[in-house]
Amino acid sequence: MIAKTPRPPYYAVIFTSLKTNEEEGYNETSSLMVELAEQQAGYLGQESARDGVGITVSYWENLDAIKNWKLQTDHLLAQKQGREQWYACYKTRICLVERDYGFEK
Amino acid sequence: MIAKTPRPPYYAVIFTSLKTNEEEGYNETSSLMVELAEQQAGYLGQESARDGVGITVSYWENLDAIKNWKLQTDHLLAQKQGREQWYACYKTRICLVERDYGFEK
Repeated sequence: MIAKTPRPPYYAVIFTSLKTNEEEGYNETSSLMVELAEQQAGYLGQESARDGVGITVSYWENLDAIKNWKLQTDHLLAQKQGREQWYACYKTRICLVERDYGFEK
Repeated sequence: MIAKTPRPPYYAVIFTSLKTNEEEGYNETSSLMVELAEQQAGYLGQESARDGVGITVSYWENLDAIKNWKLQTDHLLAQKQGREQWYACYKTRICLVERDYGFEK
């Protein structure tokens, strides 16, 4: 779904990845990370799609919220497993959302 | 693929969309827009994935480059067709990429 975010400014973390062929534990951990992120202070929403390349964008109130999530214990473990098992490569971009606009039929 | 972007700061445009069932002309126009965007001054790269929700992130040197692409003639027509035919809803977010980091096996 399209995340319902507040008026800018707020932050976006764009996480773009290519997976390895290793699937074991990936979906479970991925779902758990979404649940845990939702419980973090300053979390605003998330959008995710994969076909070949995977793109997950999470939205946050400020840089502190992003930093706290990056250092959350279960998430640290998942990041380590991600590098060891699930991801061939990834890029994370921390962005200030300055402006947004939308369309709905 | 993961876009090869320069050191921050640069800009990202996150375009998140849900499609209608109307497919006619979508793939052709979509491919053409990627080709045309690549020819724009200030274009840095693009990442795209769809499963249900579609996420396309394009990267740009600055806000002027984004504005020029938004107003490019063929792109204006594609945006109009998008609203009339292909998209049930979308959200566009203009973001300043402040920091990035990556991982490669």
